[in-house]
Amino acid sequence: MARLNDSGRVEAFSDGVFAIAITLLILEVKVPSGPGIGRQLLHHWPSYAAYVVTFLIIGIMWANHHTVFSYVARVDRVLLFLNLLLLMVCSALPWAAGLVASYLDGADHGEAAIALAVYSGFMVAHALTFGALWWWLTRTGHLFDARVDVEAARGTRLRFALGSVVYPLLLGLSFVSAVLTLALHGLLAVYYGFNQLPVPLRDGAEEGDDEPVVL
Amino acid sequence: MARLNDSGRVEAFSDGVFAIAITLLILEVKVPSGPGIGRQLLHHWPSYAAYVVTFLIIGIMWANHHTVFSYVARVDRVLLFLNLLLLMVCSALPWAAGLVASYLDGADHGEAAIALAVYSGFMVAHALTFGALWWWLTRTGHLFDARVDVEAARGTRLRFALGSVVYPLLLGLSFVSAVLTLALHGLLAVYYGFNQLPVPLRDGAEEGDDEPVVL
Amino acid sequence: MARLNDSGRVEAFSDGVFAIAITLLILEVKVPSGPGIGRQLLHHWPSYAAYVVTFLIIGIMWANHHTVFSYVARVDRVLLFLNLLLLMVCSALPWAAGLVASYLDGADHGEAAIALAVYSGFMVAHALTFGALWWWLTRTGHLFDARVDVEAARGTRLRFALGSVVYPLLLGLSFVSAVLTLALHGLLAVYYGFNQLPVPLRDGAEEGDDEPVVL
Amino acid sequence: MARLNDSGRVEAFSDGVFAIAITLLILEVKVPSGPGIGRQLLHHWPSYAAYVVTFLIIGIMWANHHTVFSYVARVDRVLLFLNLLLLMVCSALPWAAGLVASYLDGADHGEAAIALAVYSGFMVAHALTFGALWWWLTRTGHLFDARVDVEAARGTRLRFALGSVVYPLLLGLSFVSAVLTLALHGLLAVYYGFNQLPVPLRDGAEEGDDEPVVL
Repeated sequence: MARLNDSGRVEAFSDGVFAIAITLLILEVKVPSGPGIGRQLLHHWPSYAAYVVTFLIIGIMWANHHTVFSYVARVDRVLLFLNLLLLMVCSALPWAAGLVASYLDGADHGEAAIALAVYSGFMVAHALTFGALWWWLTRTGHLFDARVDVEAARGTRLRFALGSVVYPLLLGLSFVSAVLTLALHGLLAVYYGFNQLPVPLRDGAEEGDDEPVVL
Repeated sequence: MARLNDSGRVEAFSDGVFAIAITLLILEVKVPSGPGIGRQLLHHWPSYAAYVVTFLIIGIMWANHHTVFSYVARVDRVLLFLNLLLLMVCSALPWAAGLVASYLDGADHGEAAIALAVYSGFMVAHALTFGALWWWLTRTGHLFDARVDVEAARGTRLRFALGSVVYPLLLGLSFVSAVLTLALHGLLAVYYGFNQLPVPLRDGAEEGDDEPVVL
Repeated sequence: MARLNDSGRVEAFSDGVFAIAITLLILEVKVPSGPGIGRQLLHHWPSYAAYVVTFLIIGIMWANHHTVFSYVARVDRVLLFLNLLLLMVCSALPWAAGLVASYLDGADHGEAAIALAVYSGFMVAHALTFGALWWWLTRTGHLFDARVDVEAARGTRLRFALGSVVYPLLLGLSFVSAVLTLALHGLLAVYYGFNQLPVPLRDGAEEGDDEPVVL
Repeated sequence: MARLNDSGRVEAFSDGVFAIAITLLILEVKVPSGPGIGRQLLHHWPSYAAYVVTFLIIGIMWANHHTVFSYVARVDRVLLFLNLLLLMVCSALPWAAGLVASYLDGADHGEAAIALAVYSGFMVAHALTFGALWWWLTRTGHLFDARVDVEAARGTRLRFALGSVVYPLLLGLSFVSAVLTLALHGLLAVYYGFNQLPVPLRDGAEEGDDEPVVL
């Protein structure tokens, strides 16, 4: 993996992967065929729920990824590798959504719980890779562009980590209620869409650039 | 979701989702196998019809989306969220086209009607999300670039809403004739491709920029 | 569909569709499973042949499309619509390749002939939509940028049409030999990759810009 | 295929194909359904391994391709054709990963060996097409931009070829241990991600541009 001087192509490649993963989700929603369209449409509700929630989640992941990279001026090999791990997790979400679609119908509570636990596990993995990426960026700060207040950015690490604790909790909750767990994942995505930790900027950096960041 | 200062990346991401959704449509067209290629090819006509009509529809959706965003200079979190909902509807169209392909063959008129009603429901949902996006853009107008006559743009809201009434009508028509409903969706796409409400511009804004807009 | 002042976004959208269609081809190549991997791998040779030939064809289609659009400065609604039809044909090629993969194994010569005739029919459709697009561009020439010699470009229409005659011939040849027809489609793609009609330029247009064009 | 003066669009098209191929990998990972989610999840481990390893490999292929093309200023028809062959190999990797997923479970060592041999064969094919592309670029060097030391770049050909010998060796190793072979492919991807042959630059070319290259 190359030391790329501009981060633009890495972000374009990542954007492509996010856009494809979010669009592939629909392939995990079964198309009814054969007699009984009405009954089949109703019966597939878990796949609609998994589609909607996972679509929101990938959309927010993209927005957060985009915000962070808008402050990245240089990409080194470690960042490229961590980014690849992050994309590997996101690209697998259509599979995780398919798993939820297969087992959420309540036929077996134990199996639905396992499906949601695996699904929640992907969110834990995303939080870990995103946290590792943020940790690497703030370690020396030399990959950021000049606007970022590196010292303050380093100070956000703990809040990042604390925010991520919610995902292991949801993993545990899967064994109490699979449906509730999926709903909370959706609500959490909407919440993080509207409330994010800001990337701390130096005094005097252009107003209006106070781009909020990620979880 | 971040307040992104330039709308370019949001549009690029959206363009990617449209391009992928339009290309995934072909996966819902069954490839014949086994003896009797001729008979099978004829028998799958509903999937060809669903492919052609939905391809045109997504193509026009993309063009309209592109036109509106060419006047957007700033993206806030609400716009980002409404755009994500709009993309969620568009990304589901391969599934809706697959549903039509499965049930339009006339074996059961009632089931074909339901399939077309669901398909029309997606067009209603698209009109609603697009309308909400247009409503948000014209509310204060501060997300538009300087060329747009915000007052006049706000005045187009009613015509937008009236134009969208056609989709619930087609939903109702599904129960009269599923084939006719699909054909009308196709004709409507071509019509809106060539006849769109213009985005009203300020006096003195560059000629030739009178980009028409959307439904 | 909007009158877009710059052709860049239309080309970016089209490039996306070509890139996705070419990559989706692999989904039509069956992955063996169950006992007898060796026998299965050999048995699927028609799908490999269809993959390789269609990959080359879409690649050349993209390159030709790209060359023509590099001379397009403005996009009107008719051009947008013709381009959408062209993309509709290209996006369907994974299906056509799947059809060839299903029937080329020689179990039934008549069915293989039909499969290749349908495949060739898509090439005829591509030549027709590309020809219509070229005809529209050269009609007035006002969509071209200043480098193009419109009068001379209009003169190439006949050579375009003559070059396209080869595809109906291959459609006919399908009924003589399906395998030979597929091989000739592949050879033709390579030939047109290296030998194309040039877009005629005005005297004094920059040297080295004598981009060859399409079939 | 056109002589394109700027290499940007070729790289954008290639980036799209890499991004799609890497995201399609997940479609080859079977989603469990029916009773026994736990047992099924464990049973599908070969598809997870194939996903992770192939994701890393395509990611590194993209990074290497990107690095080389960042030094390419002009694209001729031969380069375009060699690039198309390279993309044809990469686009087929989801199929090769699916093959490994089907046969690595150890039910039959002979069949797993064949699957890994075919998989390794794709890596050989990639090394050959990449090598051919590098050979063509360094032959005259006139396609490179001014920073590249063409003479020294030509001198790297042998090291390129030597580095590629590892892939035929892994092909042979497939018949000893399929699992070990897959693991080594993964390790090799990580290794080449962090250790690459540099593209030799002229004296005085900007510091920090010593982009390493490929295997």
